[in-house]
Amino acid sequence: MNKRMIIEMTGQIVRLESILLLLPFIVAIIYGEQNCYIAFIAPSVISFAVGSLMVLYAKPKSKVIYAPDGFVITALAWTLLSLIGALPFVISGEIKSYTDAFFETVSGFTTTGASILNNVEVLSHATLFWRSFTHFIGGMGVLVLLIAILPSSSVRSIHILRAEVPGPTMGKLVPKMRSTSMLLYIIYSGLTLLLFIFLVAGGMPVFDSIIHAFGTAGTGGFGLKSDSIGGYSPYLQWVIAIFMILFGVNFNVYYLILLKKFKSAIKNNELWAYLGIITLSTILITVNVSPMYNGLGESLRQSFFQVTSIISTTGFATTNFDLWPVFSKTILILLMFSGACAGSTGGGLKVSRLVLLYKLIKRSFKTMLHPRSVEVIKLDNKTVDETTLQSVSVYFALYMLCVATFLLIICIEPFDFLTNFSAVVSCFNNIGPGLSQVGPTCNFSEYSVFSKWLLSLAMLMGRLEIYPIILATQLFFSERKSKV
Amino acid sequence: MNKRMIIEMTGQIVRLESILLLLPFIVAIIYGEQNCYIAFIAPSVISFAVGSLMVLYAKPKSKVIYAPDGFVITALAWTLLSLIGALPFVISGEIKSYTDAFFETVSGFTTTGASILNNVEVLSHATLFWRSFTHFIGGMGVLVLLIAILPSSSVRSIHILRAEVPGPTMGKLVPKMRSTSMLLYIIYSGLTLLLFIFLVAGGMPVFDSIIHAFGTAGTGGFGLKSDSIGGYSPYLQWVIAIFMILFGVNFNVYYLILLKKFKSAIKNNELWAYLGIITLSTILITVNVSPMYNGLGESLRQSFFQVTSIISTTGFATTNFDLWPVFSKTILILLMFSGACAGSTGGGLKVSRLVLLYKLIKRSFKTMLHPRSVEVIKLDNKTVDETTLQSVSVYFALYMLCVATFLLIICIEPFDFLTNFSAVVSCFNNIGPGLSQVGPTCNFSEYSVFSKWLLSLAMLMGRLEIYPIILATQLFFSERKSKV
Repeated sequence: MNKRMIIEMTGQIVRLESILLLLPFIVAIIYGEQNCYIAFIAPSVISFAVGSLMVLYAKPKSKVIYAPDGFVITALAWTLLSLIGALPFVISGEIKSYTDAFFETVSGFTTTGASILNNVEVLSHATLFWRSFTHFIGGMGVLVLLIAILPSSSVRSIHILRAEVPGPTMGKLVPKMRSTSMLLYIIYSGLTLLLFIFLVAGGMPVFDSIIHAFGTAGTGGFGLKSDSIGGYSPYLQWVIAIFMILFGVNFNVYYLILLKKFKSAIKNNELWAYLGIITLSTILITVNVSPMYNGLGESLRQSFFQVTSIISTTGFATTNFDLWPVFSKTILILLMFSGACAGSTGGGLKVSRLVLLYKLIKRSFKTMLHPRSVEVIKLDNKTVDETTLQSVSVYFALYMLCVATFLLIICIEPFDFLTNFSAVVSCFNNIGPGLSQVGPTCNFSEYSVFSKWLLSLAMLMGRLEIYPIILATQLFFSERKSKV
Repeated sequence: MNKRMIIEMTGQIVRLESILLLLPFIVAIIYGEQNCYIAFIAPSVISFAVGSLMVLYAKPKSKVIYAPDGFVITALAWTLLSLIGALPFVISGEIKSYTDAFFETVSGFTTTGASILNNVEVLSHATLFWRSFTHFIGGMGVLVLLIAILPSSSVRSIHILRAEVPGPTMGKLVPKMRSTSMLLYIIYSGLTLLLFIFLVAGGMPVFDSIIHAFGTAGTGGFGLKSDSIGGYSPYLQWVIAIFMILFGVNFNVYYLILLKKFKSAIKNNELWAYLGIITLSTILITVNVSPMYNGLGESLRQSFFQVTSIISTTGFATTNFDLWPVFSKTILILLMFSGACAGSTGGGLKVSRLVLLYKLIKRSFKTMLHPRSVEVIKLDNKTVDETTLQSVSVYFALYMLCVATFLLIICIEPFDFLTNFSAVVSCFNNIGPGLSQVGPTCNFSEYSVFSKWLLSLAMLMGRLEIYPIILATQLFFSERKSKV
């Protein structure tokens, strides 16, 4: 491990947050929300001071980042960002308890969108902006941002990207990490801007459009209305639904489109599986819920919106799907596990992992019949090596172990099974709403302080795909042990 | 494939059932239940005729059984046995619909113990005996029985045992398959007899003791009282609980004990993990449910009984655990997935698979830190080859895919999520009772005809560990296609 480099990089991230915190401060000025000034200035100063001290103290002799360092930097950076990012909520008094504020901030950065707020409509513009801006930052990743803006800060920064960008394999767009990161952010910002234009063109107020563009881009789900997107026009609902799909697509696809390599872009197995799951789920739910709505058009829209919102792990809602028949709710639960594509801003298991697992299962049937047969598995016409295949199937087991563990612990809470189960699944997959008492019209405020910290951990572990958080903890304790 | 050999072996199994059906006939004579005579004689004649015709028709040129044949024989034999085994219920009029009778028979042979009967106490002795006898036969396996009693019927009968005996690897006790099968049945019958003696010694009526010995030995769960084991003395409950644990242990352990190889017997990782899970779950539940019972003794007994019943996938109950707090119920749900040891009569994922998955997960953390490190995984001090490891992790994914698929289909039923979810988990893992509307005081009678056939399929797939049923169907259709 290169400890000094870990401190330097984490310090830089923390210092970066001081700049990010100035944006909601500007919003506060625009809307004349003077009571919010200090809420953003103070944390900004704190993060600048802390970050600078860390960078000054670090002075790394070598700029090399090893694989373990990438995990530790990622885990540490995300935790510190959330700890500091929670301060504005408490200082402004808009969220009373620090636990609640931390939960809300983690939910923001991890693009979960689960809230402890009983009434989001009373928040100030500045706070609403900060809350949704964390979605935008967390969506593509804060380390990706840092690498994009810093002049080639270190050798082998791929270890950081690998730890932060979700999916079974990390696709470098271009050989240089910095250029890859910049490209990702350019595509990401471009798509967000496009969505913003579509929303404003559809008559949504500018501020609402910014909030929802952030919430959709990061596949987060924080909004500014109690009924989420339910009160907006069908046009706006369709626009958001389509963009939720788009932000759940692997960004490599957009890069290929930019290069006009349309054939390669379309040869993406994961993309077709993703679109296939969306289509099938929408059809099944449309038929199942049609008695609840006026005509096929409305049930199709409600079904399509909820499906895209859950599979992209955004968590916006246009209807209280907790009232849907159990068949439709079960589809949504299964979609929560699936999640979006690797290399997108969405969470969950990722469709590419499901595709590979499916191919592994298919191969296992052949192996049963012909034990000595050797068959390679291909994705996008390329052979996937056995190491990756093993890591995918082991990741699935680890993922299920985490779900089971979180579920068991949260069940000390006096809620029904479906509430606790969907709370864990929703937080761990970074979706937002669950079912029953954490359904789309409810929130997480009823959970105990302990469970809020536990669910915050679930959100972080889900966003960073488990390994960074556990490895960082493990390395921390083994370091301490070796000192004693 | 050796089609003629498949027909011959399946025919022999069916003919074997005609003998098995004579046992309940004798019970009917003993208890003077004349209305039951024809109910067992007719199916016995039918299975003798059908089986003999199949054997006569087959005349295989070669006695070799290939891997695919093993799967097809197993799938076919279990289906035919259940189809014929359901007849006595219908002929005696004790179960009106054939669907219900088939469900009950599959539940018997697969040692699930899920019932569609609203009142089991009105059944005749002969029917009760047949119902529980299917547990005993299905527990160790009907093909194991056939191989044990037939004079070395075929070459490579290991392919049959492999398809029928659950677990990630098939442990041959002795080089000859026939001797292995005989040894398994000797240990199995010996333990069952021992349990019978303990039960009679504790004051349980002889007939009840036979029924419960069968139900415990096969880890089935069919009893003869509406409150399952709740009405019997604490002594009897402790005896049954301990024997449920014993029948969930890999029978290799008993073989080693018979050989006085105590050291090797005790060096069994799976055994210790199994006992560890039981201990931990019992402690957690005892504490959690203690306010519901009189004193620590009773809560310990209730907790221990329910834990051993679920993890061994038996499904007996001494209390309505559906009324337990959600924390305890969640532990039971997780235990349903775990199941007992490989090579036992229990179902579920099997503890050895969980142990291997856990070791794979542990290794994956090391690989994350040191990508080029190569580490072997050991079980019982022996290296497990990578092919087995891969098949275990892929089996887990396949298993979860099956749970998700069955769950999705069953959710067209108008029951709440927990009812449907626990019905699928309980049937697929061959447990018996679930929670909510299929809890220990309820039954499966409310499900539609379609769902009863679906759950029967789930039970068969669970008992035979998925591959045989799907491969047999696949091979059947590919044969038909190649003919067209």
